[in-house]
Amino acid sequence: MADRPTDDGVPAVVLLSGGLDSYTAAAVARREGYSLNALTISYGQRHRQEIESARRVARDLGIVRHVEIDLALSQFGGSALTSAIEVPKDRDLETAEIPVTYVPARNTIFLSLALAWAEVLDASTLVMGVNAIDYSGYPDCRPEFIDAFERLANTATRAGVSGQRFRILTPLIQLTKAQIISLGLSLGLDYGLTHSCYDPGPDGRPCRRCDSCRLREAGFAAVGTIDPLLPG
Amino acid sequence: MADRPTDDGVPAVVLLSGGLDSYTAAAVARREGYSLNALTISYGQRHRQEIESARRVARDLGIVRHVEIDLALSQFGGSALTSAIEVPKDRDLETAEIPVTYVPARNTIFLSLALAWAEVLDASTLVMGVNAIDYSGYPDCRPEFIDAFERLANTATRAGVSGQRFRILTPLIQLTKAQIISLGLSLGLDYGLTHSCYDPGPDGRPCRRCDSCRLREAGFAAVGTIDPLLPG
Repeated sequence: MADRPTDDGVPAVVLLSGGLDSYTAAAVARREGYSLNALTISYGQRHRQEIESARRVARDLGIVRHVEIDLALSQFGGSALTSAIEVPKDRDLETAEIPVTYVPARNTIFLSLALAWAEVLDASTLVMGVNAIDYSGYPDCRPEFIDAFERLANTATRAGVSGQRFRILTPLIQLTKAQIISLGLSLGLDYGLTHSCYDPGPDGRPCRRCDSCRLREAGFAAVGTIDPLLPG
Repeated sequence: MADRPTDDGVPAVVLLSGGLDSYTAAAVARREGYSLNALTISYGQRHRQEIESARRVARDLGIVRHVEIDLALSQFGGSALTSAIEVPKDRDLETAEIPVTYVPARNTIFLSLALAWAEVLDASTLVMGVNAIDYSGYPDCRPEFIDAFERLANTATRAGVSGQRFRILTPLIQLTKAQIISLGLSLGLDYGLTHSCYDPGPDGRPCRRCDSCRLREAGFAAVGTIDPLLPG
């Protein structure tokens, strides 16, 4: 969709994971006129293809600055995404239980890093593809978390105490996965560039049984479109 | 001061920089019976001797688990501590201006990482040596920042939404540098193990002109003791 450079608007920092949601959130922010600076964090996740996807997506969006930060959260352990704990398959998605794919404090860490870079860039806007509808119940995807982080940002930083108001844009937070996919398709996004699976096979193919695969598959089914990542 | 192991109390995560303040804060928490897990973040600071000091201090405190995390904040730039910007010398310490040694969102990032590890360890307590009296005016050293982070922590995490209450212990936040040093000396701390200078010489000696050196030197002078780091 890169039909114009993105360095001519109000600057924003977007957390770009390489997944479907952050790609869509970034595209929405771009449509709204933001100049995007993308931040990707390689945190020891087992699905490292995410990083390659983030690069592809950043290119597609015409993003000028893309910073990748290494952060070995695997040193802490405690999550199926960063340690030897097995990724659950065919889990009941209706349960209120937070699954072991939860990465402790992940979005707090990610937003902190985005905030640091935003302050250096003199940007007031952070963009994040969190979603609190078709998700795994992670606490740091909910509106109350985003609100608490905004309040923190304005107290924590030189820019904040000087009167700058940080805002976190979460254009997808109340959308279903199907609505997100429809929105992205209407913006011309190519979801074949993305990666969602928590536990891909050695050939990189989605497992189709982890939460992330199943939410994605149900979303495409509801839209009535074929996921370009799946065999036709 | 390591006269007993520290793995027998209520677990806490302490941010240990290798400086005088975090060493003292850790010692206070230890005296209060906490079992300390130390986290040191190598963030690209120019005073890398801090890391060596953190190891020495951790040994001295008898800390069982000490995790060091690499995080290249220098990729963002924007601070004299992580980039080629010069560290100011002989600055007016009474001015309200926040100096260029400010590292954007540093303590937000550090507390986020401490929170992540605390959640894995099932610890509710974070310990930090921040100080809002003899300091350089950094916004993320003030009580209102700490309060905002506590609120965030309880919204951001699985543990928090399950009812665990995270607390950040900041035993030094309202002490003068002289009071901090007196407290540490009364606890038997060896400040010769620490490192404070923002811009040490090639031989590792303190510059004695950056904010950090001058606040330290004034503190020792007020106590009437010789800083073991200075030539006798």
